[in-house]
Formats: sequence, C-alpha cells, structure tokens
Amino acid sequence: MSNFNLYYQADIAAIFYEKQALKGIGLTAETMAADLLLVTGKKPKIITDLENESGGQVIIAATLGHSQLIDTLAEKGFIQLDEIAGKRECFLMKVVENPFATLPHLKQALLIIGSDKRGTIYGMFRLSELCGVSPLIFWGDAVPEKKAEIIIKLAEPFISREPSVKYRGFFINDEWPAFGKWCGRHYGDVNEKAYRMVFELVLRLYGNYLWPAMWNSSFWEDGPGIGNARLADEYGVIIGTSHHEPLCRAGVEWQQQYHQYGESNTWSFITNRDAITAFWKDGILRSKDFENIVTIGMRGENDSFLMGAEATLKDNIEILKKALTTQNQLLKEHVNKDLKEIPRMFAIYKEVEDYYFGTEDCEGLHTCRELEDVILLLGDDNFGNLRAVPDPLARPRAGGYGIYYHFDYHGGPYSYEWLNATNLAKTWEQMTMAYEYGIRDMWIVNVGDIKGKEYPLSFFMALAYDYEKWGIDNLNSAAEYTTAWIDKQFSDALPVAHKNMIHELLFSYTKWSAVRIPESLNPDVYKNNFHEIESTYQEVCLINHKLEYLRAALSKSFLSAYESIIYFPAAAFFNTMLINLTAGMNHLHAKRGVLAANGFAVQLQELISRDKQYITAFDQFLDGKWEHMMDSAHMGFKNWDDYDWTYPDIRTVSPIPHPKIVVSFRGNDAYNLGHHWQEPPRVTNAEMTHPGVNAIILDIDSRGDVDYAFKISCDKEWLSFSPAYGSTQLNKAPRTTVHAICDRTLLSGSETAFVQIDFRFVNGDQKQAFLNVSAGNDDFSGFSGAYLESQDYISIPAAGYAAKTDISESGFRAVPHLGRTGAAIKSFPVTKNWLNEEMSPFVRYDFIIKKSREYEITFYFSPRNPLIKDGKINCRFRFNEAQPQLLNTIPDNFYAGHSDPEWSLGVTNNIRKVTVASAFKEGLNQLYFYAADPNIILESIVIAPKEKPVPVTHLAPPDSYRIT
Amino acid sequence: MSNFNLYYQADIAAIFYEKQALKGIGLTAETMAADLLLVTGKKPKIITDLENESGGQVIIAATLGHSQLIDTLAEKGFIQLDEIAGKRECFLMKVVENPFATLPHLKQALLIIGSDKRGTIYGMFRLSELCGVSPLIFWGDAVPEKKAEIIIKLAEPFISREPSVKYRGFFINDEWPAFGKWCGRHYGDVNEKAYRMVFELVLRLYGNYLWPAMWNSSFWEDGPGIGNARLADEYGVIIGTSHHEPLCRAGVEWQQQYHQYGESNTWSFITNRDAITAFWKDGILRSKDFENIVTIGMRGENDSFLMGAEATLKDNIEILKKALTTQNQLLKEHVNKDLKEIPRMFAIYKEVEDYYFGTEDCEGLHTCRELEDVILLLGDDNFGNLRAVPDPLARPRAGGYGIYYHFDYHGGPYSYEWLNATNLAKTWEQMTMAYEYGIRDMWIVNVGDIKGKEYPLSFFMALAYDYEKWGIDNLNSAAEYTTAWIDKQFSDALPVAHKNMIHELLFSYTKWSAVRIPESLNPDVYKNNFHEIESTYQEVCLINHKLEYLRAALSKSFLSAYESIIYFPAAAFFNTMLINLTAGMNHLHAKRGVLAANGFAVQLQELISRDKQYITAFDQFLDGKWEHMMDSAHMGFKNWDDYDWTYPDIRTVSPIPHPKIVVSFRGNDAYNLGHHWQEPPRVTNAEMTHPGVNAIILDIDSRGDVDYAFKISCDKEWLSFSPAYGSTQLNKAPRTTVHAICDRTLLSGSETAFVQIDFRFVNGDQKQAFLNVSAGNDDFSGFSGAYLESQDYISIPAAGYAAKTDISESGFRAVPHLGRTGAAIKSFPVTKNWLNEEMSPFVRYDFIIKKSREYEITFYFSPRNPLIKDGKINCRFRFNEAQPQLLNTIPDNFYAGHSDPEWSLGVTNNIRKVTVASAFKEGLNQLYFYAADPNIILESIVIAPKEKPVPVTHLAPPDSYRIT
Repeated sequence: MSNFNLYYQADIAAIFYEKQALKGIGLTAETMAADLLLVTGKKPKIITDLENESGGQVIIAATLGHSQLIDTLAEKGFIQLDEIAGKRECFLMKVVENPFATLPHLKQALLIIGSDKRGTIYGMFRLSELCGVSPLIFWGDAVPEKKAEIIIKLAEPFISREPSVKYRGFFINDEWPAFGKWCGRHYGDVNEKAYRMVFELVLRLYGNYLWPAMWNSSFWEDGPGIGNARLADEYGVIIGTSHHEPLCRAGVEWQQQYHQYGESNTWSFITNRDAITAFWKDGILRSKDFENIVTIGMRGENDSFLMGAEATLKDNIEILKKALTTQNQLLKEHVNKDLKEIPRMFAIYKEVEDYYFGTEDCEGLHTCRELEDVILLLGDDNFGNLRAVPDPLARPRAGGYGIYYHFDYHGGPYSYEWLNATNLAKTWEQMTMAYEYGIRDMWIVNVGDIKGKEYPLSFFMALAYDYEKWGIDNLNSAAEYTTAWIDKQFSDALPVAHKNMIHELLFSYTKWSAVRIPESLNPDVYKNNFHEIESTYQEVCLINHKLEYLRAALSKSFLSAYESIIYFPAAAFFNTMLINLTAGMNHLHAKRGVLAANGFAVQLQELISRDKQYITAFDQFLDGKWEHMMDSAHMGFKNWDDYDWTYPDIRTVSPIPHPKIVVSFRGNDAYNLGHHWQEPPRVTNAEMTHPGVNAIILDIDSRGDVDYAFKISCDKEWLSFSPAYGSTQLNKAPRTTVHAICDRTLLSGSETAFVQIDFRFVNGDQKQAFLNVSAGNDDFSGFSGAYLESQDYISIPAAGYAAKTDISESGFRAVPHLGRTGAAIKSFPVTKNWLNEEMSPFVRYDFIIKKSREYEITFYFSPRNPLIKDGKINCRFRFNEAQPQLLNTIPDNFYAGHSDPEWSLGVTNNIRKVTVASAFKEGLNQLYFYAADPNIILESIVIAPKEKPVPVTHLAPPDSYRIT
Repeated sequence: MSNFNLYYQADIAAIFYEKQALKGIGLTAETMAADLLLVTGKKPKIITDLENESGGQVIIAATLGHSQLIDTLAEKGFIQLDEIAGKRECFLMKVVENPFATLPHLKQALLIIGSDKRGTIYGMFRLSELCGVSPLIFWGDAVPEKKAEIIIKLAEPFISREPSVKYRGFFINDEWPAFGKWCGRHYGDVNEKAYRMVFELVLRLYGNYLWPAMWNSSFWEDGPGIGNARLADEYGVIIGTSHHEPLCRAGVEWQQQYHQYGESNTWSFITNRDAITAFWKDGILRSKDFENIVTIGMRGENDSFLMGAEATLKDNIEILKKALTTQNQLLKEHVNKDLKEIPRMFAIYKEVEDYYFGTEDCEGLHTCRELEDVILLLGDDNFGNLRAVPDPLARPRAGGYGIYYHFDYHGGPYSYEWLNATNLAKTWEQMTMAYEYGIRDMWIVNVGDIKGKEYPLSFFMALAYDYEKWGIDNLNSAAEYTTAWIDKQFSDALPVAHKNMIHELLFSYTKWSAVRIPESLNPDVYKNNFHEIESTYQEVCLINHKLEYLRAALSKSFLSAYESIIYFPAAAFFNTMLINLTAGMNHLHAKRGVLAANGFAVQLQELISRDKQYITAFDQFLDGKWEHMMDSAHMGFKNWDDYDWTYPDIRTVSPIPHPKIVVSFRGNDAYNLGHHWQEPPRVTNAEMTHPGVNAIILDIDSRGDVDYAFKISCDKEWLSFSPAYGSTQLNKAPRTTVHAICDRTLLSGSETAFVQIDFRFVNGDQKQAFLNVSAGNDDFSGFSGAYLESQDYISIPAAGYAAKTDISESGFRAVPHLGRTGAAIKSFPVTKNWLNEEMSPFVRYDFIIKKSREYEITFYFSPRNPLIKDGKINCRFRFNEAQPQLLNTIPDNFYAGHSDPEWSLGVTNNIRKVTVASAFKEGLNQLYFYAADPNIILESIVIAPKEKPVPVTHLAPPDSYRIT
C-alpha cells in the first residue's frame, strides 16, 4: 500500500503527459483538472514538460506504444508492462517515489498507464472517481464533496480489469423534442460541443461505443463538418450507426445528398444501385481514418421494409446479399484488404430476422460468407425483453454476437421517452441471460435523450464492464449496484439514512414507472377493486412525502444531484400516477353520480397544475441547464404519435333535487341506493374473512342535495360501527365515512352480519339500506405456510412457496424486485433447459380451499419472449396428486412486436397471464411448479372459483393471508 | 234557434233541480254555479223550489225516471223524451219560454234532461263549456274569460250523442311521489276531497269510469271510510280496479286485513282459498250498492305471477278457473243472480295471455263459460302500442272487448311518469285501430298522476266519446283536436297567432318527448354525426325562445293555463334535452381533449341549475297548487327504479403545456391533430355534394395552451374560407370557427378541393393540417321527385314517394306527425290485410345512385307489435325490375315486453330498423313498397353502401336532396 499526496497542504499535483501522447489524453487531462478544481478549489497544472516543473507531485498519464517515458520507467523496474500489454482497455496505476534522479524536486509520481488509448483515459477518469467525482458530474449534476486533502491509497500496482463485453455503448435516439431542442438551446446544434459532453459520459462509464443522434442530424456533417467524428476518434469513442444506416452514413444524408450521385432519390438497391454504392463509398472514405464499427446490410428508409410487400423472401435475401457483397467490397478496397480487421456489425431487426434465418425452402443469410466475421446484432423487443439468443449448442460464430437493448422507445404500443421506466432487476435478469448465452461482443442500449436515463445507463455500462461483479452470480445485483451508484453521486458526507431513503425513492420510482410507463397511464388502468387505486395512491403519497422531505433536508451540494436525477423525474412521474389515480376515482364517483366526485375533481385540477409546474421548474433548474429535457409527451403516447396526449378530463357532479344516498364499501365497485321500489342487490363485504383484516370502511354518499340523519344497526355483537349514527351537512361534507370494526374475540368461525342503515331525510322521506358483512376466524393452525382462501380468491406471490427442491444446486431462486411489485422466481442456471429431463427442480405452494368446487388458476408471468424464433416458453405444474401438466405460456402465432395484440398487452401491463382450470377439495391443496424452459419467470398465482371470477385489477389482487 | 239569457243585464239564471233528484245533480249544480261565478262574477242561486224563485231565467237539470217535472213538461209538449229515452248517457237541452203558467215570473227555462244520471251531469258540464269553462278549469288552470253577458243559443232541441265507447276512463297509477304527496299536501290523504276533483274531471271529459290510485291506498277505506266510493257513485263515476285487484278490493288490502280471514297471509288460491274467498266476499258486500265494474280473475300480489315458476300452464289455468268460478258464485249470491247484469272485466295481461289462449295441448280460458259475458280487457305493451286485437273474422264475444292503454308507465325498459311523452298522432293511430278491430266496450288509460297528462287524456276521452268526429276518417285528427283543445283552454280572446304558437309548442314538446322520453335521455342518445346534436339543439332553442316569448306576452288570465299545461312541462322537458345535448357536446369535446369542452361545461352547469329552478318554480306556481307534481325522477329512470337518476357529469379539460391543434368539421366525429411524425387520416367533408348545402363549418380547436397563427390555403377557386387566416388568444376564445363557402358557379360537376392549414405557434413550433372538401354540381334535371345520393347515403322520408297506386280507394296514406319527426305512411282501411292478395296498393320511391355497388337499405318502421299472439308484421317491396320480396319486420321469438331486447330497443328509440341488401346501378333506381300486413307504418328509408355504413345517428340521417 502506498500513498500519493495528490492534494496535500494546499499543494496539488500537476498532470503530465508527453507531447507525443494521443490527443484524447490531453483532452481528458483538461477534464480531470476541472474535476479536481471542483473538489479541491485548486486547478492542477497540466504540463508536457517535467523539467521545468517545480511541484513535488505529478500525475503521469501515458499509453503503451505511445510513450518513451513508460519504457524508461519500465527499464528502471518501476513498472511491469506485461501486466497490461496486449490487453483491451486496461490501465495500470502505481505510485512511484522519486522516479527521476534528474528531477530531485519530483518526490512522487502517480502513473496511469493505459494498454491503449481508452485504457489511459479510463485510468484518468478512475482517478477522478477516486477523488470523489461522479461519472455523472455533468449529466447527473453530482457536485463532488469539497476536500481539504486528497491522499490516494493504492495497493500497488493497481491493474484494471479487461472489460467483460467488447463494445459497450449507447444510442441517442428519438431525440426530438427533448435532446434536440436542448442541444439547440445550449450549443446551437447537435454538434461537437454537445458531443464532448456525451463522449466524456461514454468514457467515464468505461464505455467505448456510441450510436449518435440521427432523427434529424448527420453526425459527420454537423460538427460542424467532420468535427464530431474527429473529436470522437480523439477521445477514443468508437462510432457506429443504427441498424438501418449502413457504411457510416446517417439516415438523413441520402435525401440531402442523393443528387450528388444521380437523379433518383429512390433508396433501392435494385433500381439505383450505382448511386447508392457511390454514396456508401463516400461514407467510408469520410470515416476511414477514425475508429468505427461499420454497420452493414440494408433496410428501407426511416426504419421501414427494404422491398415492397409483393417481394418474396428470396427476393429480399438476394438483394440483401448483393448489398452485403458490395459493402464488403467497398471496405476491402478503401479501408483494409483484410476484412477481419474492420469491425463490422449486421443487425437482425424486425423482418431482417426472417432473411437471416430463412426457411426450409429458402436459405437464409446465416450461411452467407459475407457475414462470417461480422458481429451479429440481436435485438430485444423494444421493451427490454430479449427476442432471440444464440443456440448454446451451435458452434460459436467467428464474428460473435451483440444485443441492441432499449431504455427508451418510440413506437407501438406505447412510446416511452419522457423519464426512466426501467426496472433494474429486469435489466439485470435479461442482460445476464444475454451474456450467459454468449452475447458478449457488443451491448448497445437506446437511451433516448440520455437525461433521465442516467441510472439504468450506469448499470448497463457497469454490467458490461464488470460482469463478474454485477452479473449472474449476484442475485441482488440491482439493489447492490443502486447502493454503490448512490454512494457515487452523494459521497460519504450524506448520512446513510438519507442514502437509504434515496435508494427507496429510486426503487419505488422505477418500480411504478416500469409497472406501467407514464405514457400509457390513463384513469382506467388501476381499479377500484380490492382498494387498488386507494392503496396505490397511498403508497405514492408516502413516497411523495419522502421526496419532499429530502428536498427540504438536503444541503445545497447534494441538492443539485438529488433534484436532477431523483426529485424531478420521480416527482413528475408520481404526479402522473396521482393524476390518473385521482382521475380514476373522479370518474368512478362521477359515474356513480355522487357528490364525493367533486372533491376528487378539485384534487385532480390541482395535480394537473402541478404537472405543468414540475416541467417549468425543471426547465428553470440550474439556470436552465436542462431546459427542454422534459419536453416529450408524457401521457397518451401511443404508437408513433402522441395523439392521445391530453390530461384526463375533470368530472363534476351536480346534485339531483331529491333525497338519494349511495352506500358502498371502500375499494369495491358494488354500491346501492337503498331499498326503493324494489330491493336492489345487497352490498356485501367479505374482506374480514381474511384473518389479517379487522376493519373495513363503509362510504355513505349522496346523489341528492337533501341532508339526512342515519342510524346503523346490526344483528351481530362482533361488528361495530363508528360512527353508528349521525347526520349530514352535504354542502360541507358530501361523504360520510364509517369504520366497521370486527372484534374477533366475539366471532366463532365464519359468520355473516346483517346490517341495516336507516335514513331520515330532512324533507321527511325515509329509506333503508341493507348490507352483509362476513368475517372469519377459522382455525387453520397446522397448515403453516399455506395461503387461505378469502373473498373467493387466493393470491400467492411467487416467492411464497412452502417448499423448494433443487437438483444438484440447480433450481428456482427468488430474484428480488424482478416482478412488478416484488420478487419473482426463475430457475438457474439460466441456460439449463429442463423440458426433456426426467426430474426437474420445483417449488411447492400450499393453499386452503374453503369450498370444494371448480377453480381457475391464473399464473402471472413476466412477459418474456421465446428465445428462439417461433419458439415457446413452457412451464410444468401439477395440483395435488394429479399428473404434471406441460403448459405453453406463449399464444399460437405469437410475434414479439407491435402487430401482436398479446405481446402488446404484455409489454403494456408488464405481465402475461395464463389460466388453467382444476377442481380443488376443501382444505389443503398443493401446487407444484417445475422448471422447464429456462426463461419462465413466475410472479404470482391467483386462484378463484370458475363461477365467480376475481374482480378486475391491474396488479394481482392483494396477497392472501398466509398461515403462520 | 232559440236564445237563453243565462246572464243578461246583470241577472244570472238560477239552477234548479228537484228535491228527489239524484245526489250527483246537486253536486254538479254546485260546481256549475262556481264555474258561472268565475265567468260572470255572479254566483247563480241553486234552488230546489221554483215557487219562491223571483228570477226570470232558470236552468232546470233533471234525469229521466227521477223527475216529475220532466213528465209534466213532456205532457205539455215542451219536450220529446223518446229522443233520449233508453239511450246511454245522453242529454237533451232545450230552451222553453214561459214553461209554467203558474209561475209567470219565470220567463225562460233551459232544460237539461239526462237519459240517465251521467247524461244529466254531462249536460250540465256541457252548459259550463258553452259558457266558456274548460273541462280543465281545475287540472289545467284554464281561467275562463270574464263575460258581461251570456246568451245560450240552441238549435233546439240539442240531443247529445250516445258515447262511442261504453266505458271510458283512466287509471291513477304510479302515483308516488307526485300525486300521492300532492294529495297529502292539499287534502291530507288520497281521500274524497281529492277524488271530488278527479270525478269532476272524469265527467267534464264525458268519461264514466275510473281505476283509483292503489300503490299505497285503498279507495274503499281512505275516503275516510267508504266516502270515496259513495261520492263516486253519487257522481255517477263507475269504479273499477286494475287487472290484478279482483272483486273490488284494493291491492294493499290483503296484507292489511288477512288476519281477519285466517292466519296465513299467503295470496294463494291453493293453500289459502277459504280466507281469500271470504276476503273477496267482503269486498263485494262493501261495494255492491255502488256502480262498479267488477274485475275478476287473479294474479300474484304486486303485479306478479300467480304461481311459482315450476307450475305448468295447465296448473295455472286450472287454479284460475277455480278462482273465476268462486268469484262468479260470490257475485251471483251477493249482488245479482243474473250475472249478465253485473258488469265484469277480465284482463289479459302479461302471462294471463298464455292462460287465456292456451296451447294445442292445453285448452285456454277462452272457452271458459265463466268469462262469457265478461269484458275481455286487452293491453297495449305499456308504451302505447297494441299487442293484440280481436280477430275480425271470429264471432263477436257477448262480453265484448276493452283496452288498457298507457300514457304513463312504471317499469322496463324505462319508466315515464314525469311529464307528457305521448305523440297524439300515435294515440290516434293505435286507438282507431283498436276501435276498428272491435274494441269498443272499455277504454281505460293509465295517466299516472293525471297532472301533466291533461292533453293526451282529453284526446283519449274525446276519441272514446265521439269516434265519428275524431276517429279513423280524420287523418289529421291529432292536429285538429289540438286546435280545438287550445280553443277550449284559451277562449277567443287570445289572438290566433298566439294560439298557433301554442299549437306549435305543444306539438314540438310532445314530438321530442315521444322521440325519446326524458327518463331515457342521456348524453349519448343524440349523435354529433350529420350535425344531429347541433341541429336538435338549435331547434330546441328556437322552441324555448317561443316558450319564453309567450310567457312574456300573455295576459294574466291566459298565463295560468299557459304555465300550467304548456310552459312548465315543455320548458322543463326541453331543458332535459338541452342538458343531455350539451352534455353530449361536453363529453365529446372532453374526449377530444380540446379546450372548447369547457364552454359546454359552463353551459351544462347553467342548464342543470335551471332544471332545479323549473321544478321549484312549478312547486311555487299558483301558491303551491301543484307542489310535488313534478317530483318524479326525470332522468335515468330505468325499469322499476330510478337508480340511474343523476345529472350528466360535467367534464372540463386542462390544456397540455404543448402546442396542439385539433381540426374537425362541425357535425362530424372525425378530427385530426395535424401532420406530426406521421400523417394522420385526412379529415374530409362531402356535405356540399348535397346541392342544397353551400357552406360548412371548420372548427380549429386546441388541446394545448400555446397560441398560434394559422393560414388556410386551397387549390380550388370555388372554395373560400372566412376567416382564411388569423391568430388566437386561447384563454379567451379556445375555438376558431371557420366558414368554408362554395361558389357553385365556379364548380364543374363533382370536385374535391385540397385544403392546407399552416400553423405557427408562439413557441416557434410549426404544424400543418390537410383536409379534403368535396362539392357537387351535377345535373340531374329530368329526375324530378328522386332523392340524390350524397355523402354516401340517401335518406328518404316515407311521405316522399314519387308515385302512389291505390286499389279501389284503398292504399297508403301519409298520416301527419305519426313518425318521430314527421309524417309516416300506413295503409287503409286498417283492417284490410293484403298479404295474400294478388295485387296490393303501393308507393314508389325514386333515387339516384352515384356509383354502382352493393347497398344496404334500412327501413325505419314505427315499433308496432304483431296484432295476434306470436304473429309477424310483413311488408313487401321490390327494387327496380326485381321480384317483390316479402319482409317480416318482427324478429323471431319476439315478445312485446321488457324481456325482449328488440322490443325494448324499439320502445326506447321509438323506431324499429330492418335492413335488406341490394345492388344498385348508377343513376335512377326505384323502390316499390306494397301494402301487406295492416299495421306496417313506414317512417323513413335509408340507403348506404354496404362497405361504408352511415355514421350512427339517433334519428334517421337528414333527408337527402330531392330533385325538383
């Protein structure tokens, strides 16, 4: 262990690089100096000449093969270069005392030696991090803690890891109106000033790859000129293009430039081949001196099909082959005769998947020689679910595999661009699966406007960089990473209690935004049944309270990061939930015609105002630093267009001039208007048959403006009401809320109380309402771990199994936070398919049925896709002593894309429900759930009588009572 | 012609009746005196002794067989009694000069001599009428014109007609809360004070029969005591009971009194026969001295089934036979040995119809001897449509037939109790049919609370009394009667222009309330398509304007009747239409998310307040005379209960913080938000392909709060816009309305203009919207009388035939006002069935098709029922040269009751649509519509391409252009 006095007794080390150092080193030195200034208040000198330096400490940054100094130091035995030589993107960090005899004033040098350009830069940014600078210093507004001294302690030499995934980066996409307008506001255009901030982010996150913005920009023309590309290359950021932009050409360039190549603007390799070839040639000539990964292949313009609908599969494959041959030929001719030396990527996206695999009658591109050394880029389904993985039994491809993942998407069934809607546990689960199946050459993620996606992006990059740490062996990776990430943004000076609160806020925000993205929220999503709206509303309010608490509690230095990456997005997001939940209640009560609707109307108006206030406040935050970054549509953003972007309408009720009460149990859609000419269906409540529920709420509402007195009577001693009588002032309080409380000591077994409410209206009318309230106190001791039927359903969380049986340490594991609202179970190892095994691991669920009858059992699965084309996802289960059944959870003709309504439903609601039927006997019953296909993820099981389906909810109904 | 100086030179004639006169004559004399006081300001003396009378004029009221005086006068040759002797309910009126030599001061006597008790009373009330007193002096608040003298002119002797229908009356029903509370407020109970006003109404309308209120009353117990029944008898009002109250017992009595007859309260003739028999016996003992029509038969309590669902048809028939035998036996024993002398009624209602007709295997009650001389009471379907008529070919029944009709109903699919929802032309059409088919012994109509139903009740009674005048031979009876009725209420002093306006108001009110009763209105009834909401709204506003105009213009003496029978019900009703039409627009625009919704919200709130104001004002009208009479639920009154009685909710829209316009054509559901990422479906308008339409309206709305400037351009000279450009102040005027005007002189044939609107928002954003506008100027001269396809449809009103062919003066006639919005056609004579005739009368419709293709043709029929059990209603038609087709317009298994959804739909919307298909050639096509079954009533024909159905409307789409 050695110490380097980077900042000590008011002296700060200088930063040195040799004059012949790669240009990116100098750029990074500037950035690092600015970082250190923020931490220390002193800006380190940047020097390229050690001779004339008078300071005692120096940071030396150098790159193998680009430095004489390194060789000198190695010769002297200060460093062992073979520890990094030949490795990708590694760096060595070591403190050397008195490195140069000729420079006696130089007491210490901190060497940062990269195996290559990015290795050195990673080392330099790592040093910034060690000084307390977050990678999100710019994008997350993480203000570093001011320090009086910085002593770097190294167990030396420190050798960095070789990154787990070869190409790691992100895609700025769907960048209008937010990122685009933001660049315009601050930089005048999407140009090199803007990209400098992007490149730094790539590198600080130990990434190396970027797909630049392309909706309305050409990366190679807007720097201005070639500026963006040159700067990227200097920084060591490898530039790629999206799946439909071949040969380093931006999508928009063809229509802007086609006249240089011919008269036709047709993007057809059949009718306009020469022009397009020339256009491509100019693309690679323009970029060939920079580090690129060349996208090859061809699609239609603007993400569309290549050929018309009348073209056959063979036509498409043939034309694509011709394009590939031409592209490879151009690259050989103008870049490198050895194509292997040119990193190339071919994306399997949408219809290209069909061309790649072909059919029995028509050979696909997978045998095409042109693709041999090319990275095959697979895609998720735009919603973070893998669509295909390499067959683990197939021989490895020379080119390897990549994955194009989404934290942002513009398209159907919903666009999600506004904020962060990514559940980290899901990203962990799907991306570790990708890695395990051998997708290790390229990870690229669509991050929309970048801003708002800092958190999942950081995780994605960390997972790609250090899979050993965050990968498959760490089931709790998402939570642990979040702790580490918060530590990076807020430093040790923030109390742990506050950090824990931030952790909770972040998890809660991304839990709810992933359950249902704000763009897809509407007043009908969450339901009144089982108090779903109410309990969701209460949870959000509690979180909101904490959000505001921290905002008030945090000191100024923490506040900027807090507001930038936690407060504004979370508060604005939760407000969209409150708007829609309140609108749900408003519309529900308006439909009932009760005056209580009007209270919700007032709340709703206030919440809608707040939505605009959040956006305005964020625009003004840090003197407009992020103005426009929240400009995207954030409600009703279906498909490509935000045509449904409106606020929910606000509904008010006018009282009728008549005495009319409406009686209902809170959290239940049933209501009645009292005995009238005929007795209406009696409103019943069985919530207290759940042994954990001892109180319920009865709402007495009014449609009319006639005040009344009421008196509640009941035939059972165990049930009491508070208040049991009273009278109204409807113009002040249109709703009377009555608590009904069960004294279980007076209850024997299951009983139903008959409740009568007598109303006397001030106009002399009288009315009665009749209700039933059931409660249960049955003894189920001896069934520990079993779930109890109540209110005609049983809801079991997947992690609530009574027993679990592994086979050789393989089997189900509960992954925290993987489900919509909690843990989900998945079988490990993830590459193991148990479908054809005689024995397989399983979990067992126990549940108590109250009445022997036919039941329907609904499995709630995470909405994953089959891992092979036209594949299935099978699970296996059995009830009690019955034979195990195989259950395919994927509908016939399923397609993981917008054209499939089942898929659309799955990604909209983040759940896929599959229902089976069985008769159950009264008392204990058991469900055995076996491992089968590897990507089954079970979240919940809901059991209900066939003749009495569970009232509709968005989430699964609340967990049933579990016997202890 | 002779004159009687009833009121001359300040002297008013006395009213004389003999001491031995029937008591009702004395009661009526009091009423008549009060009537004359109102007219003259002087109250006539009522005398029973001519000797001591000093006046020169006397009105003498007497009844054949109850008067010595008559005999004396007849002997003297003053009168010929054989002109009325033996007739039912006739009176003779004659002026006699110096009738008694012994009483020289007596210059003139006006003799009113009845053939029976009611005859005399009718004559007395006729005299009141001749003096200008309306039959609705109390119920319609018709203040008679003050007169300085009254000289009765008679072409003597005047002999009144014998009434057309034997028993004519009404049923006070569904009388809570309105009639019941009203009686309580004014009379303390539903007692003889209240009934005196009812009996007078019966008699003033020349009725003789009444079913008293029975929801919560016993007519025989609440007088107090027997008072009601005694008073009825004195007045000569025959009392009956409803179809489920046998033997002069009110429905509520059994549960109140069963303990006098036994221990069981079971209303079962199987288990509790003796008690029920004793109960019935007491009923007839109680009433036997009064004039009654005894209801026989038996149903369950409260209008329910007699036996449980498990009982067979035979079981039910057997038990009913036993009950009938017992009932007749009781009547024979206690009332009259000759049953023929006891007027009895047996109602065929709901399931009793099945018992009456039986099946092939089970003989029904129609052969039962117990029913031989009993009036068989048939029912309508509760909504004014006949359900069965006697077979004209069957031999006449000894007992004859009656009909139970409805102007008020409590039940499904909607209750209608609040106001008047009867289209008089429909009543005329159905009741003349009843009469023509031989239903002439009893007409009874359910009038709910009486108040509000004065107008149709008057007509119903007039039709029953004087069928020759108002019946089948007078196609325009409804309108002519209305003129006469208005004359009665308002006297000659009211200018004809005002009377015509009242006529229009009354027709408009009952037209719209019959199209859709207020209880069934909701914001979704009328549609935006084809401007339906808008044009309906405008029509209602115009009517409202006239309503208010007259209220301001009328002098005080006319105002009370005007407000009572026209203004309040019409204004309150039209306000419910405005509420729902405005709510329709409010909800439509809220759904579009445009700020224009908020203007409708403000209007809606105002209209809802007005609803309450109308009711309050009516309650206060004439110092509370009618308080409670408007208490009934008047919205959402489905089925038995008014659970859906709420006002429409009021929806407001909050602008989104984003530039977003919404472009639409007025009266069309399509809209778009301008070109965005993708071009949305282009909004198109083809209204101006109708040669009568030269201007359309384009609405530019906003969802956002960002102001904008717009500019409209167009590629066609014939289309201009006003304004063609402009800019907004959204917070002041959220909607920009643009008129697009077609200059037909610049149009050649059919053309489509391409319209572009450019928007520049104040935040710098820009957007475009693209629209198509088509107009047509084609020459169709030479096709006079044909309707022209435009906007892909042809709508032909039934009376718009191009030609009509009768057979021997039989054939179709257009009955004014019979359809929902105009005339409808029906074939006459109404008892003639053409189904099996070789030739039948027909009408021919001509129409011009623009494009040869498959069409669907929808016939809009009045929703009548088959006239025989399980029958059909067939029509016959042909297109062009095709063979005639028979079309049954009645769905299979149709049942004219609430259990049938088709029937329910029919009576809710007052229309039955039947669709057929045909290909049409371009140019002229013809539809021949033939007479077949007699109760086909055709209102409209709508033709539209199969692949492009007409946008949904409540009424038929607007009439197409008819070529002249």
